[in-house]
Order: sequence, then structure tokens, then C-alpha cells
Amino acid sequence: MGGNLALNIAENGFRIAVYNRTVEKTDSFFAKAGELADKLVPTKSLEDFVAAIAKPRAIILMVPAGDAVDAQIEALKPLLDADDLIIDAGNANYHDTNRRDAASQTSGPRFMGIGVSGGEEGARFGPSIMAGGPKSAWDQVGHILEAISAKHDDVPCAAHLGDAGAGHLVKTVHNGIEYADMQMIAEVYGVMRDGLAMSSEEIGKVFETWNGGILQSYLIEISYKVAGTADPETGKPMLDIILDKAGQKGTGRWTAIEALMLGTPASAIEAAVASRNMSARLDERKVGEAAFGAAPVALDKAAIATDMLEAALVAGKIVCYAQGFGLILEAAKQYGWSMPLPEIAKIWREGCIIRSAMLNDMADALAEDPSRNLMLAPFFADKLKETHGALRKVVAVGALNGLPVPALSAALSYFDIMRTQRSTANMLQGQRDFFGAHGFERTDKDGSGFHGPWAMNTV
Amino acid sequence: MGGNLALNIAENGFRIAVYNRTVEKTDSFFAKAGELADKLVPTKSLEDFVAAIAKPRAIILMVPAGDAVDAQIEALKPLLDADDLIIDAGNANYHDTNRRDAASQTSGPRFMGIGVSGGEEGARFGPSIMAGGPKSAWDQVGHILEAISAKHDDVPCAAHLGDAGAGHLVKTVHNGIEYADMQMIAEVYGVMRDGLAMSSEEIGKVFETWNGGILQSYLIEISYKVAGTADPETGKPMLDIILDKAGQKGTGRWTAIEALMLGTPASAIEAAVASRNMSARLDERKVGEAAFGAAPVALDKAAIATDMLEAALVAGKIVCYAQGFGLILEAAKQYGWSMPLPEIAKIWREGCIIRSAMLNDMADALAEDPSRNLMLAPFFADKLKETHGALRKVVAVGALNGLPVPALSAALSYFDIMRTQRSTANMLQGQRDFFGAHGFERTDKDGSGFHGPWAMNTV
Repeated sequence: MGGNLALNIAENGFRIAVYNRTVEKTDSFFAKAGELADKLVPTKSLEDFVAAIAKPRAIILMVPAGDAVDAQIEALKPLLDADDLIIDAGNANYHDTNRRDAASQTSGPRFMGIGVSGGEEGARFGPSIMAGGPKSAWDQVGHILEAISAKHDDVPCAAHLGDAGAGHLVKTVHNGIEYADMQMIAEVYGVMRDGLAMSSEEIGKVFETWNGGILQSYLIEISYKVAGTADPETGKPMLDIILDKAGQKGTGRWTAIEALMLGTPASAIEAAVASRNMSARLDERKVGEAAFGAAPVALDKAAIATDMLEAALVAGKIVCYAQGFGLILEAAKQYGWSMPLPEIAKIWREGCIIRSAMLNDMADALAEDPSRNLMLAPFFADKLKETHGALRKVVAVGALNGLPVPALSAALSYFDIMRTQRSTANMLQGQRDFFGAHGFERTDKDGSGFHGPWAMNTV
Repeated sequence: MGGNLALNIAENGFRIAVYNRTVEKTDSFFAKAGELADKLVPTKSLEDFVAAIAKPRAIILMVPAGDAVDAQIEALKPLLDADDLIIDAGNANYHDTNRRDAASQTSGPRFMGIGVSGGEEGARFGPSIMAGGPKSAWDQVGHILEAISAKHDDVPCAAHLGDAGAGHLVKTVHNGIEYADMQMIAEVYGVMRDGLAMSSEEIGKVFETWNGGILQSYLIEISYKVAGTADPETGKPMLDIILDKAGQKGTGRWTAIEALMLGTPASAIEAAVASRNMSARLDERKVGEAAFGAAPVALDKAAIATDMLEAALVAGKIVCYAQGFGLILEAAKQYGWSMPLPEIAKIWREGCIIRSAMLNDMADALAEDPSRNLMLAPFFADKLKETHGALRKVVAVGALNGLPVPALSAALSYFDIMRTQRSTANMLQGQRDFFGAHGFERTDKDGSGFHGPWAMNTV
């Protein structure tokens, strides 16, 4: 990934020194660089590498997140000046980036964390880049990051989002949204496969149709490609060959943890993470099926049309992005980061995994009012009014027929709670006051710390 | 709470020295102790306090969780011997308890963390006590903790659950389960209030009836008491007076975070925490209601009977405990703690907030096989077979009519996923391999790291 990023930088006309602790890797990388080689300066030691860079230096680290980043910073530090710049382009936990930023402020060099989404190919031909760090760092290298990034109608998908860990936080939330988006696609896939007894190929064609509408997105695109692909070995649909144990690299989990830490609801994302954890327990699920019988019951095809699934997915997707942007807003408040929400939607329009047509409308909606819940923006409120009925039907049909739709259910519950002034949390507050004298607010007057007449009469 | 614990210890026949940094508090506590005073030794300085205790000393700290615990340990350390014992009885994060335990092992004094559930009254007359720490500590004070604990048919609700933070982890999960149990009660309350247009008093009577059946529990008991209580000021039902913004002290959140860290699904608990966070956003919910109209739609009373709500709650409760015990099992594996699961169910039967008749059956089921998913134990599998149909109906009716049931929905999704061998995570694995070459396992042969023919053809 570091190599591809270097080639991308070179191709955009910038000279760049490259270093890998294994000299052979640097040599072979250079040998394969072709006509880009004259923009590359291969180096064999960290000292040569640092010496090859013009001052004030800017150095991009692409090493595994965690201790390796700290080790690399420690190794570079004695060789650098205080006004040099180290950029961590890995998938760091943003708390680590905050810590490294704080450390850099006492003795330098300056530090910036950038989230880079788009995988190997994105790194090479145009990723989405989410940057956090001092403004001086962005002033120094922002034009390079913009040049190498993906473009949406010539607008670079790279932006400076705030201080310290702001970029890595946004990348984390990006991945959390990605988890939820993927999970909701998997859920409607399940309704089609198990409820409507459709083949992979038929399902793929449905996704392909959807990709021509409001759901147009990279994830729907790859879903129809995956569903439409046959296994070269067996000739069977790939989806029937792939085992249903999902892995996770941790960033979706971090998003859910951050939401919990910040006290902001991200229930669709949490449901997606929990679903992956359930999928991993295949042995336990086998025992479960033996005990309770298989859940999925074939539906009457008339019970649920595929355009109802499409509408449910639209509603679910809006909610999951509303939760993700709500999380970013809360983090921005807590850390005092600028966090331009419309910019974030804009730089997600191309280059990254969650790129989609809808992100363009989200950028517009967030530009109107970045602090408003996304589902209350007129464009999305209208879409939700059109689609929440379908989401209700799909959740109800899933519930009645044993077709699990955890993320879609969580999205619907969020929608219904957030559009209801009088929730049922008064019962929770009554219980808490009863057993723990926690106190409550009243509906009929200001103030807090009121108690019921039951206070202290039991445990 | 520290005072009540001391009185409880004294009443059980043990002499105990007491110390508070505010001498007046100690004096007034002693003055009010009545006939228990001759078992109490009030002290005015930390030095006097330590000198008053027989060696090897055992000291119970009851100070706010966090820095105050570390400060108190540091203050005591120079006054104690290596084989003395400090017991933290606060609501500590178990990671802090692990850290303090590790530090104690190099230079002493020994350290034990105990979770104490039952509030002020429980501390005074019999709490549930979950202990973690070295066996030598339990050997020294276990008989005292058993004596002061609540009893279930003469069996003490106090146990040694493992090393270091084991006790505080179990207390945390206890509180997470408490969140989910309360939330599910609030959800069926909402269906009755908004769907069936029942009054608080009517709802209270339903809960009271349920308390005579399988749902018998402290939380159902206080729910009918809360629902049946009128506000002395206005004469209105308390539930109509209490504002619906729920607070949280953090332990429910810790449970959800631990589940995410351990990769174990606790979706009903997560839904409960997210619901509290949504309830806190009352201003946003007001705007939501203005935009979308009020959600709750009155149901035909024939659509859903209260005994269907009771059955749904039974199913939801079984799932939420299965998730909680699953989390404890996973933590035990990770830390190598003994964690006797049947003992945990036993010591939760009395004294603590989640005490219930069902915990007795859980203790039996876990004694049969502690590593089996609780919902697969014959007793609970039978109950789920009887009740999951009702849970389906309630979730479906809620979904169709805008009555939010997030925790019950999460419980149903968990049940359906965990009883289905072939999930939809094959779609996730296909997507992940397509965009990131993450690799997958195959259904038709062993091994891992297989790729589809699409590999590397896009970002």
C-alpha cells in the first residue's frame, strides 16, 4: 500500500524518496516503477532517506497500526528537525493519534494522521483522504494529498478535518458505516435467498437494477458482481461456496465503542458488528439449528416484493449515515475539532468503499445545516416518508418468519424513537429512582433530582 | 454505603474499625449506631485506623470509583504490611482492578475487588457480593462476606469468582443485564400505554399479575409499584409526571464495550444502552415528531393480548441473560479466570437488582453445562419454543405500528441468527474479498484464505 501511494505521488509529478527496512523490497519496487522511476529516490538506510528529503521534511509512514508506528516515530525523531512532519497513513485508532500529536507538540517533529480509504487500488489511482493535524501540516502537504486523491467532478476527495486524531476518527466512522451498509445488504440478500427462494444470479440482477437508482453505490455494485459470479472450480455460484463466517479488522468495533464512549446512538452500526460476531460462532449456530429447527421459512412471493426491499434499504441507509454523522458531530463537540461535515460527505463521494450517489445529497443536506440530524434534512425526510413503510413491512415479515434483519430493525427503532417526543424512558427513570434514588426530571416543572414517594422503601 | 456495610458487618458479630477523612461523619455514624456501637471502633486518623486492625489486616474501601481508589491505596500502602489486604468494594472498571491487582503482586499489600449490588439497603441488610482476587484473600474474609450477604434458602449470595478483576467484571455484566431487562420492560409498557391505550394503573396491575408467574423478579415488582403510584403533588400517575430522559452511570456502557472488545454478541444490552442515549435527546425527538408526526398508533385491542407481551418478555429475558453469561464465559477464557457460572447465577438470586425466580433455573441449567449457550439448556430451550412466537408477534406489531421495541428486536434477531446454521455472512465475506482481498473459507473444503475470481479487479 505504501508503494502504491508512492507511485501515485510520483505520477502526479512530485519527487519522492522511498525507504523500506528490507532493501530488496525497495530495489524490486524501484525496478518495477517503469517511467515513474525518475521521480523516485530509493534509499537504503533511514539516514539516507531523511537526507534525501528537502526541508522542512514531510514523511509518510505506512506501517501496521499500533506499536510499529510508535517505533518508527522513535527511530525517525533523532534524525529530524522540530518543524519536520511525520504523517501516519495507517488505520490508527484515533486515540493513539491524539496521543502522538500531543507528544509531538512538546519536542516536534509535527505530526499528522490521515485516514486513507480505497484499498491497494485506491492508494495507487486515487483514494479518499481524511486528514487530521496542525494547519501548518495541511498547508505544507495538502496540495499533494489533493492531487493524489480521487476526484468527484474535479473536486478532490481529500480534506483537512481538524486537529490531531480528527482524520483517523472520521476514517473509523467511515468503516463503521461500511459495516452497517454491508450488513443491511446482506439482510435483504437473506430475505431474497431464504424467504423468496431466489438464486444468486436472480439476486444479483436485482442488485444490478438497484444500482441504477437511488441506491447507486460501490457496495451495491460489488454485491451484484459477487452474486453474479460463478466459482471457476465447481461452477456453482460463489455465494454458495463462501463460508458464512465474517471477519472483522476492528474499525467497525472501534466505531461502536466510540459511540458508546460519546453517549451517541449508533445502533445500526452496533447491530452490524454484533452480527459479524454471531456469524463467527458457526459451531454454536449448528447446535442452535438442531435444537430449534431451521429458522428461515419460505414466503409467499406475493408477501414481499423486491422493490419493498429496495425501499427498506434506502430508509436503513439514511438512518445509518445519520447515526455516523451524529457520532462525528459529537466527537467534534467533545474535542473542539472543526469537523466540516459537508466536506466529509464530499470526500466520501469517490475513492472509498462507501462511495455512493446518496453521499452527494448528504453533502448538500449537511451544507444546509451540519448540526441537524441528517434524517431531518428535507431531502432525506421526504425519502424516509416514502420508504419507512417498506422498512416496517420488511422488519415485520423478517420477525414473523425467522429471517434475521438486525441492522434494519435497529434502524427502524432509531427512526421511531427519534420521531417520538414521549418515549418510554420515564419507566426507566421511575425504576432507577425506586431502587437507587437516582432522581428524575418532571414533565410539569423545571429542575431535576425529584423523587417518587417510594424513595428508600426498598433496596 | 460504607457505613451501612460496616453496620451489616457489626450486626453479624464481627468487630470493625471505621474511618472517614471527615471526623464528624465518623462521630455521627458512631453516635447513631445504637446497640451495634460496641462492635465498632471509630478512628480519627488513617494511622489510628490501621493500628486498630488485627494482622494480617483486611480493609474495605468504599470510595468513588476511579482516581480516589488509587489515592486511597497510595495513602494506605506505607502503613500496611505486604500480607495485609485492601478490598475495593466500589463500582470499579475491572480493567482498573486488574491493574491494581498486578501492582499489588510486586510489593503488596494484597488486593481484592468486590462488586456489591443492592444499593444502600442491600449494603445494610444483605447485598449480592461478587469477589475477585487471590484465593488467600477469600480464605481470609470470605466467611465475613458470606455472613453479610443476602441469602437464598440459607445459601449466601457471595462467592469468589476468580482472580483480579473477575468480581468487578461480573458486577459490570450484572448491570448490563439490568439495563436490558429494564429496557424490555419499558418496551412492553410502551406497547400497553401507546398501543393499547392502557392507564398506568391498568399497566401496573398487569405487571403485578406477571410477578406471580415465571417473570417474578425485583424489577417487575418495582415496575408495578412505580406504575401504581400516584404523585402526591398532583394526584396524577407518577409515570405521567416523570420525564422520559434516562440517565446512565456507565456500567451498562462498560458491558457493551467489553462485549465489543471480546467479540461476543450482547446486542440486547447494546440496544438498551443506545435507547438510553436516544432518550436523552429529547429536544431532537421533539423536532423529529414535528417532522414525521407522532409514531405510536393505537392498536385494535384484539391485535395483541397482554399475555403475548408477557411471553415476549420471557423470550427476551432468556436471550439477554444468554448474552450476559456468554460475555462472562468469553472473559473467563481470555483471562484464565475460574468464573463458576452456576455460582454467579446463584449469588444473583437475592440481594441484587436483577434477582428473579428465573435465576434459580439458570443456576441449574449452568450447573448442567456452564459452557453451553443458556438458550440451549433444555429448560430454557423449552421456554423459548413456547414463547418465541409471541416475541415475533410483538416485534412485528411494534414495527408495523411505530411502537419502538429495540431490545426485544435485538433479542429476536439473536435468537434467529443463533438458530440458523447458514447465515448471510457469506455475502459480507464476498464483499470483503472483492474490495480488500481479505479471503474467505469455503463450504466445500477445509482451509482459509481463498479468493474469488474477482480478486484485484477493483478498489
